[in-house]
Amino acid sequence: MELPDGVVDALTDIVGFDGVRLAPGELAVYGRDATPLFEGRPDVVVLPRTTEQVAAVLRLATEHRVPVVPRGAGSNLCAATVPLAGGIVLALTRMTRILEISNEELLARVQPGVTTARLADAAGARDLLYAPDPGSRTTSTVGGNIATCAGGLRGLKYGVTRNYVLGLEAVLPTGEVIRTGGRLWKDVAGYDLTRLLTGSEGTLAVITEATVALLPKPAETGTGVAYFETLSDTCRAVTAILSAGIVPATLEFLDQNCISAVEDFARLGLRQDAGALLLFGDDGPIEVVAGNLVRLRKICTEAGALEVTLAEDVARSDALLAARRCSLPALSRLAPLTILEDVTVPRPKLAAMVDQINEIAARYALRFATFGHAGDGNLHPTCVLDPDDGAAVDRAHKAFAEIFAAAIRLDGTITGEHGVGAAKLPFLADRLGTDQLRLLGRIKSAFDPAGILNPGKVGS
Amino acid sequence: MELPDGVVDALTDIVGFDGVRLAPGELAVYGRDATPLFEGRPDVVVLPRTTEQVAAVLRLATEHRVPVVPRGAGSNLCAATVPLAGGIVLALTRMTRILEISNEELLARVQPGVTTARLADAAGARDLLYAPDPGSRTTSTVGGNIATCAGGLRGLKYGVTRNYVLGLEAVLPTGEVIRTGGRLWKDVAGYDLTRLLTGSEGTLAVITEATVALLPKPAETGTGVAYFETLSDTCRAVTAILSAGIVPATLEFLDQNCISAVEDFARLGLRQDAGALLLFGDDGPIEVVAGNLVRLRKICTEAGALEVTLAEDVARSDALLAARRCSLPALSRLAPLTILEDVTVPRPKLAAMVDQINEIAARYALRFATFGHAGDGNLHPTCVLDPDDGAAVDRAHKAFAEIFAAAIRLDGTITGEHGVGAAKLPFLADRLGTDQLRLLGRIKSAFDPAGILNPGKVGS
Repeated sequence: MELPDGVVDALTDIVGFDGVRLAPGELAVYGRDATPLFEGRPDVVVLPRTTEQVAAVLRLATEHRVPVVPRGAGSNLCAATVPLAGGIVLALTRMTRILEISNEELLARVQPGVTTARLADAAGARDLLYAPDPGSRTTSTVGGNIATCAGGLRGLKYGVTRNYVLGLEAVLPTGEVIRTGGRLWKDVAGYDLTRLLTGSEGTLAVITEATVALLPKPAETGTGVAYFETLSDTCRAVTAILSAGIVPATLEFLDQNCISAVEDFARLGLRQDAGALLLFGDDGPIEVVAGNLVRLRKICTEAGALEVTLAEDVARSDALLAARRCSLPALSRLAPLTILEDVTVPRPKLAAMVDQINEIAARYALRFATFGHAGDGNLHPTCVLDPDDGAAVDRAHKAFAEIFAAAIRLDGTITGEHGVGAAKLPFLADRLGTDQLRLLGRIKSAFDPAGILNPGKVGS
Repeated sequence: MELPDGVVDALTDIVGFDGVRLAPGELAVYGRDATPLFEGRPDVVVLPRTTEQVAAVLRLATEHRVPVVPRGAGSNLCAATVPLAGGIVLALTRMTRILEISNEELLARVQPGVTTARLADAAGARDLLYAPDPGSRTTSTVGGNIATCAGGLRGLKYGVTRNYVLGLEAVLPTGEVIRTGGRLWKDVAGYDLTRLLTGSEGTLAVITEATVALLPKPAETGTGVAYFETLSDTCRAVTAILSAGIVPATLEFLDQNCISAVEDFARLGLRQDAGALLLFGDDGPIEVVAGNLVRLRKICTEAGALEVTLAEDVARSDALLAARRCSLPALSRLAPLTILEDVTVPRPKLAAMVDQINEIAARYALRFATFGHAGDGNLHPTCVLDPDDGAAVDRAHKAFAEIFAAAIRLDGTITGEHGVGAAKLPFLADRLGTDQLRLLGRIKSAFDPAGILNPGKVGS
């Protein structure tokens, strides 16, 4: 789009010269996020430092009907932060203060641009745990995590980001500043706007401050790895673990293709003749962790594991977790284009879903690897291919459409933790139905009557 | 109101003769809930058995602009289920089936009229735990618990109802049936309508089915009681417990007036010379519970407890929990009218809040007792008085208005777990601000354009 006359000057008045970016190279950078094949181009990038500046930018944008795309680190994988309609990218990456950490109240209050890892480290230094643990934690921001309701490797036991958001300060597209929730674990005064904004992908309001719950840091953590002949065996072990009354912090799996890629990349000494590996971990009081790891080893062995090893020390434990965390970079090396997806199915249907993914991949002659969160049925089927091979890219799009349909048929969903964004908006009606989709549109209008906030995404 | 011609006949066609109530005595019963001093009168009570019947009733009501008040057991304490504008009371108490309990998936699927205790018992029989544990659990329904986002005695460690709702089937006021969420722990496809409906007090949609998360049943539970000279000492002990990194399942307090009333009522052998008592409890693996109870005893002793006792067996443990659960019936015996409130403040401000409650009570010459959830700062200040003493009732209203204002000043809220209803709607703007209140109204309109669903409550 063409910005209306005077908008850039007005933005400069609001945030100062150093808060406005217009250079073509910078506009190009903010035209993408971590999602391949999606690209937009903002007319201007604005980097506010205060809530008041955010409010002034949004009032101006609503007045002039200029699109605004709020953005944290841009590590999004569903094109939720790609400025498809141009306009303003509102980058919250200069609002990075940790305003408060309280051991007494078990909470932190932060600005949205703080990275997840920095908050976790600051909490850890006070013997506290910030439980949400997305794979992108070293770069992703807390504001972005909340906007997408990020999950992570501890989701089974600890839940996802929404379970930890106590209160938000947010600016409506029309410029009003609201405060939802607060410092309280229990507060039912009004509709749960805290949770409605969590996961709304920057389409309803711009988060300018968050109060999040912390937990006492567990005394001990422990990790182990089990290798299985097939992924079906792995899934049977997961079911046996949960049916035995154990809900461990971590239950992650890698399929054979993924194991190979990770081993080639990181040389962790993973066994490569297995059809799948299950990474398990727990935390808590020392006696509980030790007991649970032994029980997990026994259950995996009984479920037919080829081999089960408990990490002998923290270094080995970290190495095993790194195997899971580096799955995406490892797969990215296999071909120039990596498309990573995020379907979720009920746990008992995990093996069936992976079978379907492999069948679809074979039928479309595509190279796939799959890893994910076995405990909560959240899979990341990943396709690696050459972006210059247009026919293959087309086949990949068709394959993913079939994968989404298969997940829905299995009582699953098209996105467990990454979000809808622009990438999955075309599939949302299949998941929610048209009545619910229309309702989302009416909710969007209740927040954003001019439709300026992140257009072309959920709610549009 | 006067029902439009033909509406009763049409309702009878939908739910059958046995699903329609018109007798004056029954209308009077459904004109009230558990909230004193609030009364409405429905024109008709409708008891559907299926989702299709609910949808047909709502379509009819929207067409004829007839108010509809959805209702579970009617144990609400903020007049959320009082039919202030007449019309239809839609009682979900005949939809009582437990449709499914799965150990493998750790979930239950139920109709809304199942009582909380019945679900908990059915889960318990399968070695599973339904964690939400509101005081009214033997009569309250799961649908009502979700509509109010009910809390309870285990909220500190386990969180509240919203943490356990995985998916909902709900009918919009215009008759469309939507399904939000599902069987998944992780699902970010679209705005979080599951959480938006949770706590919306029957003003946005009617819940017709819920899928809720269960946990493995803890191997052991244990309880203890500590007596303190003052409530401030009690609060100091609570802070010390949490700062020591222990988050027990239960941390409940009773003030002196409450202890006396409970002891007179239930003869549990509570010590009556104390200024307050703290009931603490934990659950989990045997070695953890045993260790934590000893640590809790030590911390309470160091915080100046007059006496600390651990329950020697399950019977004593149940008796102690009964002391907390019977606070409301015990206080109800002191005078014909009992007004129980539900403010919440940040934990460190609990003692200050109780001091202010007592100061306000003294100034207005009212008899108050206070009990509540010390762990999450959720207090239930309770006023007992004679309903025929109009001047005292007026003073009580003024006193509660001051209590709400004091809670807000202390960064707290006007309701932690009971809801807004009609009783606290006048105070909601003070808590949320007018911008947010207007936003709630726009969200309400997005669901309910004709404004038929539970008018005069939150969102109105």
